[in-house]
Amino acid sequence: MNVLMILVIFAVLLALSFAAFNYLTVRHMKEGSETMQEIAAAIRVGATAFIRYEYRILYSVVLVVAVILAIVTSWQAAVALLLGSIMSGCAGLIGMKIATYANVRVSNRAQESRNIGETVKVAFRGGSVMGLCVGGFALLGLVIVYLVFGLGMDQISQLDSQINWIGVSFLPFPMTLSGYALGCSMVAMFNRVGGGIYTKAADMGADLVGKTEAHIPEDDPRNPATIADNVGDNVGDVAGLGSDLLESFIGSISSGMILAYHLFLSALANGQNLSDDLLRRMILFPMLFVSIGMIACCIGIASLLFRSHMSSDPHKDLNSATYVAAGITIVFGFLVAFGLFRGVDQLSIMGFSLGFASPWIAAAIGVVAGVVIGFIAEYYTSADYNPTIRLAHASLEGSALTITQGLALGMKSCMAPCVVLALSIIIAYQVCGMYGVAMAAMGMLSFVTVTVSVDTYGPISDNAGGIAEMSGLDPEVREITDTLDSVGNTTAAIGKGFAIGSGALAALALMISYLYSYNEVGTELVLNIMDAMILAGAIAGAALPFLFSGMLIEAVAKAARKMVDEVRRQFREIPGILDGTEKPDYKTCIEISSKGAIGEMRVPSLLAVIVPVFCGFVFGPRFVGGLLIGSTISGIMIAIFTGNAGGAWDNGKKYIESGSIAGCGKGSPAHDAAVVGDTVGDPLKDTVGPCMDIFIKIMSTVSLVSVSVFAKYNLVALIVSLLG
Amino acid sequence: MNVLMILVIFAVLLALSFAAFNYLTVRHMKEGSETMQEIAAAIRVGATAFIRYEYRILYSVVLVVAVILAIVTSWQAAVALLLGSIMSGCAGLIGMKIATYANVRVSNRAQESRNIGETVKVAFRGGSVMGLCVGGFALLGLVIVYLVFGLGMDQISQLDSQINWIGVSFLPFPMTLSGYALGCSMVAMFNRVGGGIYTKAADMGADLVGKTEAHIPEDDPRNPATIADNVGDNVGDVAGLGSDLLESFIGSISSGMILAYHLFLSALANGQNLSDDLLRRMILFPMLFVSIGMIACCIGIASLLFRSHMSSDPHKDLNSATYVAAGITIVFGFLVAFGLFRGVDQLSIMGFSLGFASPWIAAAIGVVAGVVIGFIAEYYTSADYNPTIRLAHASLEGSALTITQGLALGMKSCMAPCVVLALSIIIAYQVCGMYGVAMAAMGMLSFVTVTVSVDTYGPISDNAGGIAEMSGLDPEVREITDTLDSVGNTTAAIGKGFAIGSGALAALALMISYLYSYNEVGTELVLNIMDAMILAGAIAGAALPFLFSGMLIEAVAKAARKMVDEVRRQFREIPGILDGTEKPDYKTCIEISSKGAIGEMRVPSLLAVIVPVFCGFVFGPRFVGGLLIGSTISGIMIAIFTGNAGGAWDNGKKYIESGSIAGCGKGSPAHDAAVVGDTVGDPLKDTVGPCMDIFIKIMSTVSLVSVSVFAKYNLVALIVSLLG
Repeated sequence: MNVLMILVIFAVLLALSFAAFNYLTVRHMKEGSETMQEIAAAIRVGATAFIRYEYRILYSVVLVVAVILAIVTSWQAAVALLLGSIMSGCAGLIGMKIATYANVRVSNRAQESRNIGETVKVAFRGGSVMGLCVGGFALLGLVIVYLVFGLGMDQISQLDSQINWIGVSFLPFPMTLSGYALGCSMVAMFNRVGGGIYTKAADMGADLVGKTEAHIPEDDPRNPATIADNVGDNVGDVAGLGSDLLESFIGSISSGMILAYHLFLSALANGQNLSDDLLRRMILFPMLFVSIGMIACCIGIASLLFRSHMSSDPHKDLNSATYVAAGITIVFGFLVAFGLFRGVDQLSIMGFSLGFASPWIAAAIGVVAGVVIGFIAEYYTSADYNPTIRLAHASLEGSALTITQGLALGMKSCMAPCVVLALSIIIAYQVCGMYGVAMAAMGMLSFVTVTVSVDTYGPISDNAGGIAEMSGLDPEVREITDTLDSVGNTTAAIGKGFAIGSGALAALALMISYLYSYNEVGTELVLNIMDAMILAGAIAGAALPFLFSGMLIEAVAKAARKMVDEVRRQFREIPGILDGTEKPDYKTCIEISSKGAIGEMRVPSLLAVIVPVFCGFVFGPRFVGGLLIGSTISGIMIAIFTGNAGGAWDNGKKYIESGSIAGCGKGSPAHDAAVVGDTVGDPLKDTVGPCMDIFIKIMSTVSLVSVSVFAKYNLVALIVSLLG
Repeated sequence: MNVLMILVIFAVLLALSFAAFNYLTVRHMKEGSETMQEIAAAIRVGATAFIRYEYRILYSVVLVVAVILAIVTSWQAAVALLLGSIMSGCAGLIGMKIATYANVRVSNRAQESRNIGETVKVAFRGGSVMGLCVGGFALLGLVIVYLVFGLGMDQISQLDSQINWIGVSFLPFPMTLSGYALGCSMVAMFNRVGGGIYTKAADMGADLVGKTEAHIPEDDPRNPATIADNVGDNVGDVAGLGSDLLESFIGSISSGMILAYHLFLSALANGQNLSDDLLRRMILFPMLFVSIGMIACCIGIASLLFRSHMSSDPHKDLNSATYVAAGITIVFGFLVAFGLFRGVDQLSIMGFSLGFASPWIAAAIGVVAGVVIGFIAEYYTSADYNPTIRLAHASLEGSALTITQGLALGMKSCMAPCVVLALSIIIAYQVCGMYGVAMAAMGMLSFVTVTVSVDTYGPISDNAGGIAEMSGLDPEVREITDTLDSVGNTTAAIGKGFAIGSGALAALALMISYLYSYNEVGTELVLNIMDAMILAGAIAGAALPFLFSGMLIEAVAKAARKMVDEVRRQFREIPGILDGTEKPDYKTCIEISSKGAIGEMRVPSLLAVIVPVFCGFVFGPRFVGGLLIGSTISGIMIAIFTGNAGGAWDNGKKYIESGSIAGCGKGSPAHDAAVVGDTVGDPLKDTVGPCMDIFIKIMSTVSLVSVSVFAKYNLVALIVSLLG
């Protein structure tokens, strides 16, 4: 069976060497004028400094968690945790680094070629480094975990779990794999929260004074916060997004593998006569499927980069890369299912109701669901459709109605994606049991490499526009980068659909594994929400994402406020700034964003790690089970609500700026109202929304890792044993 | 046992005759000058016309539902439904009527006496009519249902459920009682939704043009929407609130009774040898407890009305009435538990872990939880505490940060009340099983009469202030009514805590009964959220309150927009209005609010009734079970979030108006930003929030009534039977 691992390793090597090739290619391109180089260098230095500082804190937390993990569970889990955090950390760092090289080269290419297609290629090449690193490093770590620590098959055949020195019993493979996933999640959490606060504090600060008070355009070099704003795009939208999707990717694969392990053990305990071989195949399936996906993505990316004739519509070109990758993944994914499960007995015991093709069908359902959820997000947030157009018209009536209408839009938009999710759960379950639900999540993310490449292309283009503006390039250049940027907004909306959809499904698979971990092996798996303890957990759990969101919004507002004060101070004390005779002090603004983000990210990030463990030690595993389901369900709602409301406000503002409403344009009262909407939406869509899927998965993973400990040692159990 | 019903009937008669007495006393008071009489008449005519029109639609829907109910379940349930709707309709109508008489008499008394205490008494006397009617009519209907249709004890002893002509089997007593509760819920739904849209459309319309554009104060007679705004207080805050709490009251009692019935049957089926007598006692307990509560409330109300020396702080006086009522209820409630359960065997089978006192302790837990949740709401929304003060300060930085800060405040405020709810569920369950959870809900609402009286006092005072302003009374008079009004805001926040807390607990009790209704009698009761069908239901269900909220907000915005257009038109076409030389056309504004509310309320109101039934017939009872738990959990969050965010924006604005922030006051940019916050918060706190508890309970009750039908006939079952 291990010969199949060659395919996986090949995929990893292909992705990473393609990434290296693109990295070097981008670096060899010309940067343009000295001013452009200076600006790009300032952005790069700011971004690198922030990430370096953030990683220092992140890795000290990771180390502490690893030590605790090594003590209370196993050293293998601790090593895997470190490995996961290093893999994710590398992907984020390299991908962000190249983004800060690519941005200026995109502006320069736009200037030199005056051709959209050529410019798109540069931006996409830059983005593809992040995409390929995400896929490559994630799978590399997984291969290492699999090959070094193995499946713990000896334990399987004897149905034995290991018991460590504090008397806690656990299954080695799921524990190690959870450790790996947790490592990835922790990096994602810090990058998303830290980057999200950074980028929105800078953005809001720049907008609140620059646009609203001084009435200077976006990215104007006279705005002291403008470099910080562009740094924010890199640390939030590039590094944050990359580690977010890496986490989702690993979450969906590992939750499927862990689940397979538990399903198998449970079937064995129920007297089914199963061979180890089936389990190996079920664990290999997601790994092989995503390897196919990664190779397909390389082909898709190459098909765009090495194309001689680009269309004039970047959206089409980018979509073609995605379609190529997705198409190849689905077609060849069938072969994986065929090769692994064809002719294998006893599939029905594991819930495969349509034979060998079952997991493939479930994965395909995931792909379809992800696409549909993405399109629903596009419908609600794009100015091509009614909801956002109506929102833009509400701006004519002032900021209050703009906000009201946007809140209503966001709330209404929750229904359709949830119906899609609900239906895909029902169908995936019918086709392939709970393993099918996990495979649907895996399917959604199987071509993550190209998704991340396209998503990263967005902020790179955004930055390129900023550099063009700041270095006073031709308006035509700015037009090209603006076209690129606006396409990025749409692709980002679709990407968010995949992130939250897969996050929800993966969290559910993790929860099933959680239940298996503390229930007696072989018992029927029940999380009875009518049990008072579980119900209480669910109610408290549902409030957690709200608390977390409120804290994040406040953190952004607090940091933005400091930025506003600084920008106002500079305008006041350096009167030459607004005439363009004096240079603003960009550096102080960068420092304010950095310090604000670092200071504010700790409490919310730790919340997700500490709360389930604390509740577990007090109320025990049933309460935490309720907590997880409650927070998962309400987290999904908040993610959709904030993402769509924020996206619609942003695009509604752009709709007005484009002059689509007669008599309104930049500077009109309607535009002012729309800017208020956009400002309110900023932390919602770029800080709160993207953190939600990580939040619910980190809670699930932490619980899964620690349940064997607090199932044995908790206050409620202690009281019961004292009373009884 | 029926001799105990005398106590219940006595309580009903006492409450209703006290209501009649207060009604007549208020009507005999003097109305003041001719202008005042005119304004009051205009408000009264507008309110009555709206309610009459609304009731016409409401009762046609009720009739349709009753006919369907009679056909598919039992005629008794249909009759009970009609009875419930009539009882609730009467309470709402009478209470609102007297509020429109009392308002002008409050202004007049303020003018004549120049004494806060005397004025408070008039307002409270007016409010007490609503309170007493709510308690009296609700319990009257319940007594009728109990005495006329009985408990169906014949069926109990033989464990037989009735089977109707379409082959659907159901238990007569729970079905009839659910019908009664559903009737109350439907009135509440229409009154809350219709009234909520009406009042906020008028309020937002009046504010958006009046305050923001024309810069005239609230309730200025030059504002054409001002009468409509005052009508809105009566149809939304008086009639809507009254029928809302009546619904909660009946929901909490009936859910406990129905649950007792199911628990009893289940114990019987499990071979426990129980006597019918225990069931009778468990069903009587909540009825007797609330009767004691009602008598206690009469004493509490009388203690205020007939007091000779009022303090200068109305808050204290009103609180004293509540404390008297709550204190007597708890003390004498103990006697009820003592009398009913002392010495009764087999209590432990029903989950009474602390003997006869168990249900009393559970009820007391409910009272404490309600008070704590109310105080948390006060903490987050009152300008005496940090959160709202910080929100007010955010207004200095513009409307965007005001909104952002308010959203963060609302989201953060969800955690604490949910923890209280979670703990009370755990404790109530430990003490008295699931019956205990229902009794906690019942306890929260046992002194509903005084709660509603105090709550209704608020809008009456608000109206009195409006009338004083419009008829140009002395500023000193306005000051008195303003003091009364601001106290009303605080009491309203506490009242909301009770409504949502009890709503959540009652919905859970209803859900347990729902599960009993479709599971085989005697089987263990499980709603396994890890079952794919139930999980899918929960995810879709959690999105429903968001959809419903979005629709409501949009409905208000739509109606408000029409109002804005009309007010602008009048200012434009009748130039004499702003000089005060010409009178505005109030009537057209009233019509716009009426039509807007009536037109917009249908779809969201019907949503709650139709969705669970539709899903039941398609996906079957397990999916609907998930739907209910999902919507309950997310409904709680939205209720708390919207209520607290909206309340804090409102009070933050008042804080600025009071001049507490140096350099800011009415008309300052900070005040403008605060007004935007208040306007955004209006539909959240007064339309969306208060509808949430009705929404989740109406879904539960509809499902409970129809589950016996769709458990037998549904698409999924059909497909399964065709395939198998």
